[in-house]
Amino acid sequence: MIANDAYAGLERRFARASAVNRAAAILNWDRSTMMPDGASDDRADQLATLGVIAHEIMVAPDMADLLARAEAAAGALDAWQAANLREMRRVWAHESALPGDLVEARSRAISACEMAWREARRTADFGTLVPTLTEVLVLTRRVGEAKAAALGTSLYDALLDEYEPGGRAARIDALFGELRGFLPELLGRVLDRQRSEPAPLALDGPFPIEAQRRVGEELIRIIGFDFHHGRLDVSAHPFTGGTADDVRITTRYDEADFTRSLMGTLHETGHGLYEAGLPRDWRRQPVGAARGMVLHESQSLLMEMQACRGRAFIDFAAPRLQAAFGRSGPAWQAANIHRLYTRVAPGFIRVDADEVTYPLHVMLRYRLERAMLAGDLALVDLPGAWNDGMRELLGIVPPDDALGCLQDIHWPDGGWGYFPTYTLGALAAAQLFAAACRAVPGLLDGIGRGDFAPLLGWLRANVHARGSVAGTDEILTAATGAPLGVAAFKAHLESRYLPA
Amino acid sequence: MIANDAYAGLERRFARASAVNRAAAILNWDRSTMMPDGASDDRADQLATLGVIAHEIMVAPDMADLLARAEAAAGALDAWQAANLREMRRVWAHESALPGDLVEARSRAISACEMAWREARRTADFGTLVPTLTEVLVLTRRVGEAKAAALGTSLYDALLDEYEPGGRAARIDALFGELRGFLPELLGRVLDRQRSEPAPLALDGPFPIEAQRRVGEELIRIIGFDFHHGRLDVSAHPFTGGTADDVRITTRYDEADFTRSLMGTLHETGHGLYEAGLPRDWRRQPVGAARGMVLHESQSLLMEMQACRGRAFIDFAAPRLQAAFGRSGPAWQAANIHRLYTRVAPGFIRVDADEVTYPLHVMLRYRLERAMLAGDLALVDLPGAWNDGMRELLGIVPPDDALGCLQDIHWPDGGWGYFPTYTLGALAAAQLFAAACRAVPGLLDGIGRGDFAPLLGWLRANVHARGSVAGTDEILTAATGAPLGVAAFKAHLESRYLPA
Repeated sequence: MIANDAYAGLERRFARASAVNRAAAILNWDRSTMMPDGASDDRADQLATLGVIAHEIMVAPDMADLLARAEAAAGALDAWQAANLREMRRVWAHESALPGDLVEARSRAISACEMAWREARRTADFGTLVPTLTEVLVLTRRVGEAKAAALGTSLYDALLDEYEPGGRAARIDALFGELRGFLPELLGRVLDRQRSEPAPLALDGPFPIEAQRRVGEELIRIIGFDFHHGRLDVSAHPFTGGTADDVRITTRYDEADFTRSLMGTLHETGHGLYEAGLPRDWRRQPVGAARGMVLHESQSLLMEMQACRGRAFIDFAAPRLQAAFGRSGPAWQAANIHRLYTRVAPGFIRVDADEVTYPLHVMLRYRLERAMLAGDLALVDLPGAWNDGMRELLGIVPPDDALGCLQDIHWPDGGWGYFPTYTLGALAAAQLFAAACRAVPGLLDGIGRGDFAPLLGWLRANVHARGSVAGTDEILTAATGAPLGVAAFKAHLESRYLPA
Repeated sequence: MIANDAYAGLERRFARASAVNRAAAILNWDRSTMMPDGASDDRADQLATLGVIAHEIMVAPDMADLLARAEAAAGALDAWQAANLREMRRVWAHESALPGDLVEARSRAISACEMAWREARRTADFGTLVPTLTEVLVLTRRVGEAKAAALGTSLYDALLDEYEPGGRAARIDALFGELRGFLPELLGRVLDRQRSEPAPLALDGPFPIEAQRRVGEELIRIIGFDFHHGRLDVSAHPFTGGTADDVRITTRYDEADFTRSLMGTLHETGHGLYEAGLPRDWRRQPVGAARGMVLHESQSLLMEMQACRGRAFIDFAAPRLQAAFGRSGPAWQAANIHRLYTRVAPGFIRVDADEVTYPLHVMLRYRLERAMLAGDLALVDLPGAWNDGMRELLGIVPPDDALGCLQDIHWPDGGWGYFPTYTLGALAAAQLFAAACRAVPGLLDGIGRGDFAPLLGWLRANVHARGSVAGTDEILTAATGAPLGVAAFKAHLESRYLPA
């Protein structure tokens, strides 16, 4: 037999696991958008069961042998198949590190903690979250320990590796060190400069939610979001879910302010376009998945921060916003909207942060989650440590925990090791957008006309369609000429916020 | 400590299969309500995979042995556990009767036939459906033969047993014979009487969909639908889906006529209340499932036909409908709305039929599907046999097959053996409602005040909470004093349509 039948068998198993995981993705989306509150236990049971089933497919007793046989005959594979086999081993290494009862216990703990978090945030009462969050932390630490042993990494790197394959804390420390070296000083100069200029004019609401929804859909359709393969809905915490063929993005609306919702929608659109652009022939295999959260976040931030907060897009969008809300006057001119959308101000909430202060929010969370995982910070001390860090990094202290350590779902959701990918993604976004602008003549002019096809075409070819065929740094190097660094991000901030 | 460890092991397996099936139920709901068109292949793959996984859990090689060991030690089980074990064997008998290649071949034939049916119905051309419908019939017959051998029943009874456990054609023949004995004559008298009275006044639209949605939600909330454990959405074909803790009912709105949508919503509410009322301690086991389609349809028809088309409910609802649509005048008085909602008229389409003519539509389908399965009616002769039957039973002949034998999806969908449960459900609905009215003083007065708690409490105790702990006739006998019969249905029709 010339073919690699062990590899073929692996493809069938991963396709089955993929179908289970895609089903779970839709159920997760439903949980955050549609599901009535009373169904949370029922849904937790469904998701835990699907998680265990997908896990069991991965850790079947003969998987190690199948992988070894497929690798021994890897000469018969083409480049994509070979990359797929590498990804199979990576996924298997993560999955097989964990006993099934730990997977299930953690899944159930997360479901309980998520629900507790919604209530704790509503009442700004961190104390009520401590019991369920402790359970999640304890189980996450056990997951990290098991994976660290299997992968030969530190506990933190093992967790990080789930979200960013190959990601390592040492690399983050170096990049964050560089950011730390110029960002506070740059922030000070930006704030000084803003103070020396008249404040932008406010856009006065109310802005009916239906009008916000319509203009949001209009703009993301223009950008390239395909409603034949996706939806835009509402959730408490915006996210991109579903599958590559069924992309579910969410936003949240505020009648008093459309601007945050709109940029949130554009952000999720960037995530959604990445998913939709993944290699069509590899939909059900590991090599067809998004490379990791750094590139994922690079796509959302490239869309939101690089493209849509740039003057070219605001010029295009301003008349549409005027029409959507039936407004006009000086506040509604593109120049003013652009100044609103590039306003820098230290604030309490990460998801509302401007791109200059955002990395400081992430550095705080990175520091705290490493300390919690290491046992150096007890959960009951988290609110205090949070507030101390906010004072140190951003110079402000939240008035309550809802505006502090309760604001993010990540830890209740088990997402320890995730936060740094936001800022690594911001670096990658700047680097990719600069490369796209160099590579595609007239790209910014196109955006100014609402023509995103040149940008999207470049991203499809250089990022989306590559799936997981290579590592993040390989993909970035091929696309931009260099591995991930801070230079493009620094240049972007200086150009946008401190123009000569 | 359960002394029967084989039984305990079975509970774990059925709980797992239940979680997979409940996940699939939400995904099915999503497919009909939320999913973008382009995701249908993706969703089909997810659902097929979950279906195979649930099937594999059921037909694991050691299941027969586990069942036998659990049954040998059944003395250690309590009454619910013993009933659960009986249901386990029933489910297993159905699942294990079929070879995998037959399941797959039939599934493929159904997919092809469904597509052909949509086109055939559009063009009113039954001839184009014959090849694919023949394939479905042949494979359904093979399924029936395999199950008949496993269950020790006739072919038709084996198919019926999937939808109505314990249902038998001999019983249906007897009940339908009784109906046949009085229904045509009763229908004639009702039509004569209607002709002797002025026609009801029409309710003129348009009726904004948002207003329809609001009043529908208001009314079903009053009836007892729990939005903490359920939703009301829109789909092309109304259905009740989801799970007992997460009931998803759907309706469809027509701006020109709110009356059909509203009654459709109330009908699905009856289904939904049954699901929500199933025994809470047995949510994930076969004994906790709805007993079968006869009792399921009895609950929807009890709510729609017995309770909500009755004068007491219309008296309660009329002022709310007037307020919802901002209308008044003679047409909007309860007496007129009640006359609209109890209008009888022979028509071509089953789903639009009134409760007097509906059984005649079902009798026709039952007669024809048995003849087709037995090989006594060739598919090419179906249109002629259909039209002969319509002339005989309803006195009208459809002008084309779209309004005739092409109107229902059931046969193309493989649902042979399902149709009789609609009319058996109507009989059960009348019998249960009469028993509830006898047992609960002031029940109708309560409905007239919008107080459904007495009715719902009686249904919960006597039907819903019994799950599958007993057979349909046992449940009916305990609740009403008699097994399923036609007397209450006949009395109901006479009382409503031929009052003295």
